Amino acid sequence: MTSPVGNVLIGQSGGPTSVINQSLVGIVEEALSSDSVKHVYGAIHGLQGILDGNLIDLGRESRETLEAVAKTPCAALRSVRKKPTEEDCKRALEAFKANDVRYFFYIGGNDSAETAHLLNQIAVAEDYDVRLFHVPKTIDNDLRVTDHCPGFGSAAKFVACALMGDNQDNRSLPGIKVDVVMGRHAGWLTAASALARRYEDDGPHLIYLPERDFDVDAFVGDVDRVFTKTGRCLIAVSEGIHDSTGRPIGATDEVDSHGNMQLSGSGALGDRLAGIIKQRLGSNLRVRADTFGYLQRSFAGCVSEVDAREAREVGRTAVRVATAGDVPHGSIVMLRGDGDEYSVSFEPTELKNVAKETRDLPEEYLAGSNDVSAAFLDYVRPLVGSMPEPTRLSDFPLA
Amino acid sequence: MTSPVGNVLIGQSGGPTSVINQSLVGIVEEALSSDSVKHVYGAIHGLQGILDGNLIDLGRESRETLEAVAKTPCAALRSVRKKPTEEDCKRALEAFKANDVRYFFYIGGNDSAETAHLLNQIAVAEDYDVRLFHVPKTIDNDLRVTDHCPGFGSAAKFVACALMGDNQDNRSLPGIKVDVVMGRHAGWLTAASALARRYEDDGPHLIYLPERDFDVDAFVGDVDRVFTKTGRCLIAVSEGIHDSTGRPIGATDEVDSHGNMQLSGSGALGDRLAGIIKQRLGSNLRVRADTFGYLQRSFAGCVSEVDAREAREVGRTAVRVATAGDVPHGSIVMLRGDGDEYSVSFEPTELKNVAKETRDLPEEYLAGSNDVSAAFLDYVRPLVGSMPEPTRLSDFPLA
Repeated sequence: MTSPVGNVLIGQSGGPTSVINQSLVGIVEEALSSDSVKHVYGAIHGLQGILDGNLIDLGRESRETLEAVAKTPCAALRSVRKKPTEEDCKRALEAFKANDVRYFFYIGGNDSAETAHLLNQIAVAEDYDVRLFHVPKTIDNDLRVTDHCPGFGSAAKFVACALMGDNQDNRSLPGIKVDVVMGRHAGWLTAASALARRYEDDGPHLIYLPERDFDVDAFVGDVDRVFTKTGRCLIAVSEGIHDSTGRPIGATDEVDSHGNMQLSGSGALGDRLAGIIKQRLGSNLRVRADTFGYLQRSFAGCVSEVDAREAREVGRTAVRVATAGDVPHGSIVMLRGDGDEYSVSFEPTELKNVAKETRDLPEEYLAGSNDVSAAFLDYVRPLVGSMPEPTRLSDFPLA
Repeated sequence: MTSPVGNVLIGQSGGPTSVINQSLVGIVEEALSSDSVKHVYGAIHGLQGILDGNLIDLGRESRETLEAVAKTPCAALRSVRKKPTEEDCKRALEAFKANDVRYFFYIGGNDSAETAHLLNQIAVAEDYDVRLFHVPKTIDNDLRVTDHCPGFGSAAKFVACALMGDNQDNRSLPGIKVDVVMGRHAGWLTAASALARRYEDDGPHLIYLPERDFDVDAFVGDVDRVFTKTGRCLIAVSEGIHDSTGRPIGATDEVDSHGNMQLSGSGALGDRLAGIIKQRLGSNLRVRADTFGYLQRSFAGCVSEVDAREAREVGRTAVRVATAGDVPHGSIVMLRGDGDEYSVSFEPTELKNVAKETRDLPEEYLAGSNDVSAAFLDYVRPLVGSMPEPTRLSDFPLA
């Protein structure tokens, strides 16, 4: 199978990450050096830009601009949350034909992989040769097959740094503190809060993930036990925690076009949990809640250097695989090496392996009802890169 | 006047900052090199530790530990929010006498300066020679006399980096976004959000500070105007915004022992403002709110290098002034040099100049009802140190 010669189109979709532009720049630089590629275009606001004819020429950007963009959080091409209809897909394919687009790279999560999958079905049906690739990103880390997702390491670093600082804060002025972390279905990001611990009694002391049903009575009992023993309690909870019927504890009524309920962008869950603690354990207790919100995916200046490097390489790999010719469509996954030293290889996988469904934390990464295992810490530690090392005084007694 | 020879005692009080331990270590290292000082002690949880006899020997800490502690956010000695009674002050003085404490350094905000002031009055009345110094810290930047406060620069950097990222996020997925920033009386920290702007249409597009009465109708009108014009709107509001009667918009019923109302540690204000926008401008609008909360004062790894350096020097200066002998008590202020290049000098001031009352943003730093002036940006820029530089694509049209 030979690869076609034509133009590259790139789009970004879904919630931003801190390194999604590394993948964009990785695609651009690799595409510009390929003999199969004439021009490298970008779609503004992803699929919406394709439908609106809102395309830009990325090949004219200077090397300097591209490098600065790569270091900038969120989608430089701007993003979109749009589940395409069949009609949308047909119109998008017309746009591909009109612009001689022979390679389309869609940087996004599982919804974006699904969009690429739908586009591919139409392209095959219409016998138009366009290579459709999903380039993974998600702070949720919930894509299947891949060891981990570009974007997760930086968000995990943010969460760990936030909990590290908050643990010091909670130790300075003791009380009960609830920190609400993103992750509607899978608890990967909340689990990363455990990286904040350095000393034995460091928080987070309790971690609640959507992989377990959340039981209010058990929660209150856990908090009471920790607080009674240590005089303070730092708690990390996923925004997606739910009761045994599956109903989110922080549920609101708003849903997006993919049917996802709004959980972020509101302090409701944290305030609800703080209210429960005060009601059940004492209204005079110092109870506070913070909801980390969008800072987790966009905060400027908190990037895992490992994540940044891998996000760039995922983009480059997608172009290499697409232009090599023998894989007409797919996604890129990272597979971890077996050695003691952390390493990953970058491989293609089929779109259907990544689209739609997500991946929860496996049982081996959970510990009891309110913690993560040592195996999870071994898994996540290499992904966040260098971390601060909060240090305590020795508290030497007076002579 | 000669300086006494005896022991140094250090305490930390009030809300933590990212560099409060720089001041602690500055005091320790300068005290250890002074001929007037025999031992350097620390009080665990500030005044509470003095009353409980919970003191530690800081002179036995290794250089390495001290340097690592200096880089650790929040109060390594642990903090306290306690307004002392006259009885407390007398007991504290007894503890000073029992431990031959001749120098007391209290690192904190205006409440801590007030505590030092009260202790000084008792010491003078009892004719006990102890040098009482307040070492300033507060992310609120609301102490009088000083050009700015240690701790503010790092918190301002956090807020600016958060808004920088959130501006990219809001540009990626347009909507209306409310970011609630700490600062109950003064808007310094919220004002620093303006540092997030690099391009003309960058957010925050609207900034609301407690120095102005908050009018809901005007707010809704402002948001409508920005959103109608640009399709998005990023808003920074201080947690302390209040109506024309002085009642906080985000009021809750909880107060601390200094009579301060609880505003942080809850998402109530942000959710309330988001609710108002939806109610008034359309329930189908994408409106989100984040409340930055305690991360602003404790996030591990976001420190202004200028702030860190100055916080260390403020601690050192306090010891130098105290042991020099001619100033028996006071606080340390930073005065900005007149030159084009940013510089500060460190000077003593009287406790009464710093205690109790706070300092709002002056009129010259405000612009209209919802922005800050260029003069404020000139003031704040040197304090946050190096910043990320988010960069946009040029959006070149297709050939």
